[in-house]
Amino acid sequence: MPQFLKVKTAEEVLEILEQIEPLETEVVDLNSACGRVLSANAPAAEPVPHFNRATMDGYAVRAGDTFGASEALPAFLEIAGEVSMGETAAMSVGRGQAVAVPTGGMLPAGADAVVMVEYTSNLDEKTIEVTKPVAPGDNVLQIGEDIREGETLFDIGWRLRPQDIGILAALGVTAVSVYRRPRAAIISTGDEIVPAETDRVPPGKIRDINSFTLSSQIREAGGVVGMREVVVDRLDLLVSACLEALENHDVLLLSGGSSVGVRDYTLDILEHIPNANLLVHGIAVRPGKPTILARVGRKLFWGLPGQPVSAMMIFRAFVIPSLSFLQGQRKTGDAAGAAVRATLNRRLPSVQGRTDYIPVIVSSEEGAFLATPIFGKSSMIGILARADGYVIIPERVEGLEEGTEVVVNLFSQ
Amino acid sequence: MPQFLKVKTAEEVLEILEQIEPLETEVVDLNSACGRVLSANAPAAEPVPHFNRATMDGYAVRAGDTFGASEALPAFLEIAGEVSMGETAAMSVGRGQAVAVPTGGMLPAGADAVVMVEYTSNLDEKTIEVTKPVAPGDNVLQIGEDIREGETLFDIGWRLRPQDIGILAALGVTAVSVYRRPRAAIISTGDEIVPAETDRVPPGKIRDINSFTLSSQIREAGGVVGMREVVVDRLDLLVSACLEALENHDVLLLSGGSSVGVRDYTLDILEHIPNANLLVHGIAVRPGKPTILARVGRKLFWGLPGQPVSAMMIFRAFVIPSLSFLQGQRKTGDAAGAAVRATLNRRLPSVQGRTDYIPVIVSSEEGAFLATPIFGKSSMIGILARADGYVIIPERVEGLEEGTEVVVNLFSQ
Repeated sequence: MPQFLKVKTAEEVLEILEQIEPLETEVVDLNSACGRVLSANAPAAEPVPHFNRATMDGYAVRAGDTFGASEALPAFLEIAGEVSMGETAAMSVGRGQAVAVPTGGMLPAGADAVVMVEYTSNLDEKTIEVTKPVAPGDNVLQIGEDIREGETLFDIGWRLRPQDIGILAALGVTAVSVYRRPRAAIISTGDEIVPAETDRVPPGKIRDINSFTLSSQIREAGGVVGMREVVVDRLDLLVSACLEALENHDVLLLSGGSSVGVRDYTLDILEHIPNANLLVHGIAVRPGKPTILARVGRKLFWGLPGQPVSAMMIFRAFVIPSLSFLQGQRKTGDAAGAAVRATLNRRLPSVQGRTDYIPVIVSSEEGAFLATPIFGKSSMIGILARADGYVIIPERVEGLEEGTEVVVNLFSQ
Repeated sequence: MPQFLKVKTAEEVLEILEQIEPLETEVVDLNSACGRVLSANAPAAEPVPHFNRATMDGYAVRAGDTFGASEALPAFLEIAGEVSMGETAAMSVGRGQAVAVPTGGMLPAGADAVVMVEYTSNLDEKTIEVTKPVAPGDNVLQIGEDIREGETLFDIGWRLRPQDIGILAALGVTAVSVYRRPRAAIISTGDEIVPAETDRVPPGKIRDINSFTLSSQIREAGGVVGMREVVVDRLDLLVSACLEALENHDVLLLSGGSSVGVRDYTLDILEHIPNANLLVHGIAVRPGKPTILARVGRKLFWGLPGQPVSAMMIFRAFVIPSLSFLQGQRKTGDAAGAAVRATLNRRLPSVQGRTDYIPVIVSSEEGAFLATPIFGKSSMIGILARADGYVIIPERVEGLEEGTEVVVNLFSQ
């Protein structure tokens, strides 16, 4: 049996991950910046809008000229011109005057409000009557009212969403400074592992699963998959594959076979890697206890369990945060990450001092969500196909009663 | 003012979208299949596991030989060999015999259970004692117990997740039949629109925002962005740009300027496009009422509002479903889509007969989520930067009281 000298709690591991420094920065075109993390904050170089804009079709006026106007006693204004869409309004609105403007059009100098077209009628070609008063600012978006000049909309560490890209475009920003994406290598090992392409797998062997799930997960987490190999369970071959991988990748994921020997191998391999610094040797979680994390210079070396279910859950719980920190992500919305609250429809036993990740099916019943735990041997990969997400039973909790409201962390779809 | 002859409700529009047939199918390599939608179901061609597997380190035995065993009265078994990881077990386990197996190793013929190594001790080189009985099947994953041969794990219309890719790899499936990704063209128009690269924007003009938000959204929704152009607000130029776009794209998004004229233009354009069939002219939603949807043969023509906030919300509410249907997506988990339940901390007025999309900030307070509506003129794009998601006030509801529990549809992060 492998010895876990000092198994760490999930919380302790997450604290270690928080120390991870982001990778270098690079400048990318705005068109490929969605999903990337800002490495410099971007104060608005100009106000938005940069001219007073009408927010309704109507007439630009001096609000004071409409005070007291009503259907019974309309205000009469002289039509002093018309602003077209996209045009710089050259005229100005004097006392008693009105200029027609379209929604989004520029307010001429002198005007401080827009009367909606619905509350006007043409008396003749030169005169309108206004039947409802406006206050200064009504139906106008003023210079800088949307975004102030110099306002910082996005902080360093913010992952850009589609709308953020749009806002940067509005400000004329067409390239942004972001943190580099982490490059990850995946090595699957284990005497029982054969490549997925293998047509007829002899009894005793199984096809490589982890390099497929892990590469899909890496891409979803914003990383880039580089080297990807199945290596026979032999120390010398594994050491040289790991050294090669560490040369031009930021993260190495070594997924062991499910045999006990491999777990020991990971430590043996680390002994052959110069400057390897063991940070985590075992995590008090289920599944995935035999997880190893080391730093090799600035690079991360993850030793993941060979069990596909375990490897996937450890990836969700710990590898994704490590990749986010490498990408410089610090700030997210409070509710970031797909999760739903659901009612547990079965009792979930657990052990104090261990964090459990329990795959569940989420169903909806009369608008409320129900979480049904999937039981089965932890080595069953079919569980992953049936699960919509998972429930975390924290370390200090001894189990969850039926009927408890739980948070289900959803698998992406 | 534009006339909306028969404005449709959000629900009616979604019903129309449900009629959309998926695009053609194609075969892709398993490595690039994550996020794609299956166009053929994939019954398991073999069982998983395809041999009886030990799920614990220990000894493969005939369970019957251990019945009644205890610490006081252990069962004695003859060691008949050892199975190595990945090896086909050639020996068999006879009555009174035991064969050492590692976790994941193959059970020899004759054995029907595994005694965990913790409950055995070596008496001598040839004999172990067993101190706890096992039942048939204990610590064994039997042939097909994980996935039965012929079992259909994924139906047509299922979007593949990382774990699904892993399961297909386990089954030896290295290429899958999926629906083609929709190719989308974006045309931004409006006399006030200038390209985002424009350095100094004259008063009256604004930079193109929608082609940036829309392309990011299209990619997030699984589509491919093709043509992307800013076209001057002139019928002949718009018609020829639209005709060109429809030639080699499945979807055309024409985002109008915010001027009223453009909305009329979209209908005028449609009159110049052979076989255009108007499906939707106005939706009873806010923002985004002046939305148009037409079919041109099998292609979709979306006329989106020029307002960036409106265009983005309409994309979330209607364009994404249309892209999903083109990709053949039919089935999702019940809780698919990132959403959280939160408590509304302010009253939200609304009008019956109209669906409202209200941007909100989500904050977390003592474990509970709070949704704070963002008010402001609907033309303010800064709202999008501040919002974490949005709340839907359905058609039949006249507003939501403070303290109501609402579902917040999250923007991705």
